[in-house]
Amino acid sequence: MKRVITISREFGSGGREFGRQLAEQLNIAYYDQEIIEEISKRTKLAEQYVEQIIEQKSVIPFPIHVGCRLHPYSFSNPILEQKQTIMMQQNQIICEMAEKSDCVIVGRCGDYILQHFHPYRIFIYAELEHRIKRCMERCTDHDRCSFSEMEKKILSVDKNRKKYYEFYTGKTWGNPLNYDLCINTTNVDLAEIISVFYKLFC
Amino acid sequence: MKRVITISREFGSGGREFGRQLAEQLNIAYYDQEIIEEISKRTKLAEQYVEQIIEQKSVIPFPIHVGCRLHPYSFSNPILEQKQTIMMQQNQIICEMAEKSDCVIVGRCGDYILQHFHPYRIFIYAELEHRIKRCMERCTDHDRCSFSEMEKKILSVDKNRKKYYEFYTGKTWGNPLNYDLCINTTNVDLAEIISVFYKLFC
Repeated sequence: MKRVITISREFGSGGREFGRQLAEQLNIAYYDQEIIEEISKRTKLAEQYVEQIIEQKSVIPFPIHVGCRLHPYSFSNPILEQKQTIMMQQNQIICEMAEKSDCVIVGRCGDYILQHFHPYRIFIYAELEHRIKRCMERCTDHDRCSFSEMEKKILSVDKNRKKYYEFYTGKTWGNPLNYDLCINTTNVDLAEIISVFYKLFC
Repeated sequence: MKRVITISREFGSGGREFGRQLAEQLNIAYYDQEIIEEISKRTKLAEQYVEQIIEQKSVIPFPIHVGCRLHPYSFSNPILEQKQTIMMQQNQIICEMAEKSDCVIVGRCGDYILQHFHPYRIFIYAELEHRIKRCMERCTDHDRCSFSEMEKKILSVDKNRKKYYEFYTGKTWGNPLNYDLCINTTNVDLAEIISVFYKLFC
């Protein structure tokens, strides 16, 4: 049986880091930026543009759960059409990657897109204050900001992720019933808990 | 450092079983019925009565988070006073137990009552259908009922737990932020996951 693990995460909770370390520990593939690179290759659109489209999320014109019934007017708008293409490519690439080998996939509604693989679905979250501190520690001189600016940024990213997830899947982002395991990373040493949790997949 | 583990759980999710097996695996105390027995001893009230008071929950007249500021009128009602006594005894006993040794405590707002012990707080939950099936498998000839009757019972117990928790703690029952780990037990072999999770406490 394939081990397909999907990670959903609140911004700043260390979900990406958790996914990367978990994949490393299990010695399986970790897909994140690779998905953007592959979409970029297939669509011949710049990686940065693809990333921007995926990050904006709220303007995508049809949810996964209504399948491919596109509104005819959508084709009258080339940007909308491009967005649809990018999102459809993303779904396809994620499925191909999971088909190819055991893997960890972070974000991108992976838990929903890959449901026929019966993935193990993890949600990583933490108290807001912890997430703000964590993000601020990681700031470079280039993107340094105040505590309240960081708080605003985190809440905004989370709001987008929530909208994106709910629009695409019709389910509530962060509702424990959508996941097999929800891990609070407040004041937690990620490496330490991964050294326990990875055994769930051995 | 003491290992104090609190388990909150949806009815029928196997939370009690999880707590019992986890304590066994860690070779630490498991407190559940013992709390009722001890309250009964101290108050000289029948165990069954104590249990009934604790299970009813919604009529308890003051939340933990407003401390011991009892409304003077409450003493004019002997049943209300008795309820208060039982709940205060329960809180005290839970603290004494956690003070005495490492332990697992199931339910009873343990995560909140024991917050000064910095307990590891686990929430156990599962899909409703799984919980109904699980409960029905455990029915005896004496308490057998239909699927829909069991569904009603489960939803009613959960509603009481939710009210109880929210009244006592001022927080939302089942909100992941109140716990360190939330485990979905739908179609899961409890013994198997406990054999992984107990290592978090070794």
